[in-house]
Amino acid sequence: MSPRPFADRLAALVEERQSQVCLGLDPDPSRLDRDSAAAGGSVAERAADAVAAHCRSLIQRAGPVCVAAKPQLACFERLGPPGWAALNSTVAAAREAGLVVIADGERGDVPVSAAAYAQALFGSTPTPWGDVAGLEVDAATASPLLGSDSLEPLIEGAAEAGAGLFVLVRTSNLGAADLLDLPAPDAPLFERLAALVAGLADRLMGECGLSGTGAVIGATEPRHLSRLRELMPRSIFLVPGAGAQGGRAADLGPAFGEHPGSVLVTASRSIAGAPDPAAAASELRAELWALAGG
Amino acid sequence: MSPRPFADRLAALVEERQSQVCLGLDPDPSRLDRDSAAAGGSVAERAADAVAAHCRSLIQRAGPVCVAAKPQLACFERLGPPGWAALNSTVAAAREAGLVVIADGERGDVPVSAAAYAQALFGSTPTPWGDVAGLEVDAATASPLLGSDSLEPLIEGAAEAGAGLFVLVRTSNLGAADLLDLPAPDAPLFERLAALVAGLADRLMGECGLSGTGAVIGATEPRHLSRLRELMPRSIFLVPGAGAQGGRAADLGPAFGEHPGSVLVTASRSIAGAPDPAAAASELRAELWALAGG
Repeated sequence: MSPRPFADRLAALVEERQSQVCLGLDPDPSRLDRDSAAAGGSVAERAADAVAAHCRSLIQRAGPVCVAAKPQLACFERLGPPGWAALNSTVAAAREAGLVVIADGERGDVPVSAAAYAQALFGSTPTPWGDVAGLEVDAATASPLLGSDSLEPLIEGAAEAGAGLFVLVRTSNLGAADLLDLPAPDAPLFERLAALVAGLADRLMGECGLSGTGAVIGATEPRHLSRLRELMPRSIFLVPGAGAQGGRAADLGPAFGEHPGSVLVTASRSIAGAPDPAAAASELRAELWALAGG
Repeated sequence: MSPRPFADRLAALVEERQSQVCLGLDPDPSRLDRDSAAAGGSVAERAADAVAAHCRSLIQRAGPVCVAAKPQLACFERLGPPGWAALNSTVAAAREAGLVVIADGERGDVPVSAAAYAQALFGSTPTPWGDVAGLEVDAATASPLLGSDSLEPLIEGAAEAGAGLFVLVRTSNLGAADLLDLPAPDAPLFERLAALVAGLADRLMGECGLSGTGAVIGATEPRHLSRLRELMPRSIFLVPGAGAQGGRAADLGPAFGEHPGSVLVTASRSIAGAPDPAAAASELRAELWALAGG
């Protein structure tokens, strides 16, 4: 039996919770309280335990008004093996809170290595001693720099697992203009990437009309949104950069397609750093739901 | 005191060993013998132990005729926390064999996340309980898709650690043509990337005249090599795709600059899969050394 497509699972959750908020988890151990880790264990273990507890707490507080959680993988990797264990624990906490989990690692590599990333993210790895489960996340971010054959194993792995893939199309950082906005030759490179994503939409299509072949589109350049929606009518947009990076949720109207689940807006620092994370997430949720015509 | 630059450490090793061979480590646990893991522990732990032992054995056999080892991170990540521990152990084994270690993860992200990757790869992460050391590798591969500000924290982290950074410029897979060969608008995108790399060369310059701001250039399209060398006269080229992917070492002459350390050729399956890995590495070493005019 095929697993239920990511797009359908997300779309149902968006309608149920009337929310398009994705909780970004970018834990910085240097900002945690010294008292937040139990005594004992190595420094890495203590830091990883504190990071896992911090993420779990954020998920418990802000999770109920969100639909997704997006752990940023580097923030866990930098703590070594205990950091990877904290990532597993954070994925589990998000799932318990009913959130879809988007692993944000922006992976991309030649096909044989991309297949290994697919196992790490969506599937499992066969070994002579049995299968080793990967993160088993609901979706992941991916870099398309190496072209379509590099995305293929990730799409394939996502399809088998009923997962989604958010391909970087126009990111939120200033330097994105260096390459993604280059005319290549007749239209910006990001339009080429959008066409690549649209061409893969059928592969992760849900019954709701949305595709789990999604796109990462920064909130910092809202003038591109309507063109990108036109080029990728079915794709779910994962939109970072509202809040701390200067983008404004109010400008995101043109990002929406017909379905309220067509956009997820990620917020990290603006939720985690707020005095009341649940209130900050709630406010963003209401603003977006109004935009989506909910 | 500043650490000795990567370019100088590598250049000295290349001259000492008369070798430009980089041992690619892409361990696939499904190909290992069932007897290669000790009994006990979880499936992931057994598989990770077997992977670490396999890599250590390859390093011991082929390492003496190589100058670098390049673990492919996905192959370790897919085994979870024990996989990350096996990566640490593989990095240590390569260092004991006198090799420089290149972490092949093709990371690239917005600046705040790129800084976290720099900590994971080259530096350490401050926490209230002390610093957590990262992989502390000698170099890493990086994706430039997000533009110059996304590379900046990786270059900065590499500079502080005396490490190198190999930026993807023209990869070895077929799909590389989809984007990297696009005219953007007057020259292929990869030439833009080459200019970006050349512009960062001073930041990791060694006294030997080579820069640790390197480039990943696939062996599968040798017609681009002389132009890329012209655009990046000081950069060390990391060249995958000779051997199993169809590129030929004999075609790599135009990749070389003035210094024999200006090119590293990675070989994974063609060494690991050979009946005698040391002999396979030796053969490649001799072929390259002759090409470099050694």
